[in-house]
Amino acid sequence: MRLHEGWRSSASWRVRWALALKQVPYESVLVDIDRGEHLALAPLNPMCAIPTLELDDGTALAESVAIIEWLEETRPEPALLPGGARERAHIRELVQIINSGVHPLQNTGVRLAISDDPEQQRAWCARWIERGLVAFEAHVARTRGRFSAGDAITMADLYLVPQVRNAERHAADLGACPRVREIYAACLETPEARATDPTEVRKRAAPPT
Amino acid sequence: MRLHEGWRSSASWRVRWALALKQVPYESVLVDIDRGEHLALAPLNPMCAIPTLELDDGTALAESVAIIEWLEETRPEPALLPGGARERAHIRELVQIINSGVHPLQNTGVRLAISDDPEQQRAWCARWIERGLVAFEAHVARTRGRFSAGDAITMADLYLVPQVRNAERHAADLGACPRVREIYAACLETPEARATDPTEVRKRAAPPT
Repeated sequence: MRLHEGWRSSASWRVRWALALKQVPYESVLVDIDRGEHLALAPLNPMCAIPTLELDDGTALAESVAIIEWLEETRPEPALLPGGARERAHIRELVQIINSGVHPLQNTGVRLAISDDPEQQRAWCARWIERGLVAFEAHVARTRGRFSAGDAITMADLYLVPQVRNAERHAADLGACPRVREIYAACLETPEARATDPTEVRKRAAPPT
Repeated sequence: MRLHEGWRSSASWRVRWALALKQVPYESVLVDIDRGEHLALAPLNPMCAIPTLELDDGTALAESVAIIEWLEETRPEPALLPGGARERAHIRELVQIINSGVHPLQNTGVRLAISDDPEQQRAWCARWIERGLVAFEAHVARTRGRFSAGDAITMADLYLVPQVRNAERHAADLGACPRVREIYAACLETPEARATDPTEVRKRAAPPT
């Protein structure tokens, strides 16, 4: 399979990380949104969004949640949604706090629609990121373990970590989110998170001359 | 269980409709966002969002996707995510086009943050709704059947129909989406969609005097 992805795209990181955890081999196709390369994805994905996962039969899957749930159903180990229905629901709540509660509001297209001014864009993004991560913090403050839902990486971490990276980029204030910052640091100590980190992918996008 | 919901909230309609299809009895608690009543949900749901499903053990589930996936796992019939992994992925793609691609951008809080001017708010909402529904149209144009993914209602329809209702409210142009409009009309002929329609719930919120 081929993953159409962007080095800075946080939704791409989620899928790249899931593929690494499940040890699924794939070909990476880097897409540069700034150059409009995503528009060429239309036949595969009408939203022209990255990530788009092209399967070996020529069809494609879009939307990180749909892709990761599909990976979980077709390659169950290691489980990214472990536990019973109640535990899985809790992980999906955390996923959606980021996936629908934060990420769409600070995505490139929306940011550009808000203002031409970089500081206004930044403040807009920081506002929604802070709101979402404070809610995430309230949820995970009740749980124990190294990561968002225990001592193993779950789908919730795959959404949290790229969002915290975006928070840093937009100088959001995470002072009220100590547990979120702790989980972020713990995740970044794992080999799959490090190997799929945007800073690693960027080296492929623009190799040092 | 108790569903904390709003009569006009499209995310509430999704869950109400799923509960009706699966014939799950519940107590409805109407929450008026305009009066700030959602803030009282904080102990149950840190996002203070509706719908919030309060379970009999006193815990609660938030986020419509997490709630409906949980219902699907605990009460599999009728299936809202039927088929194999590939078919389920397709339905989840459609769900996410609405859930993360459209709905967050035209939600009440964001709309109020965009502008004080109702016409600017409307234009903002219509823009993202049209973009998302055109993508949804491109996806479902390839499929056959009465509804979004065949001849039975699936989770995709639970997201599409309330979004089309919002499109009407914001006067979005659905001229490029004939199949979406056809599916919308077909869904509204089903008893569970009609019984859970906001216009029905509104009667409970403000009974005629």
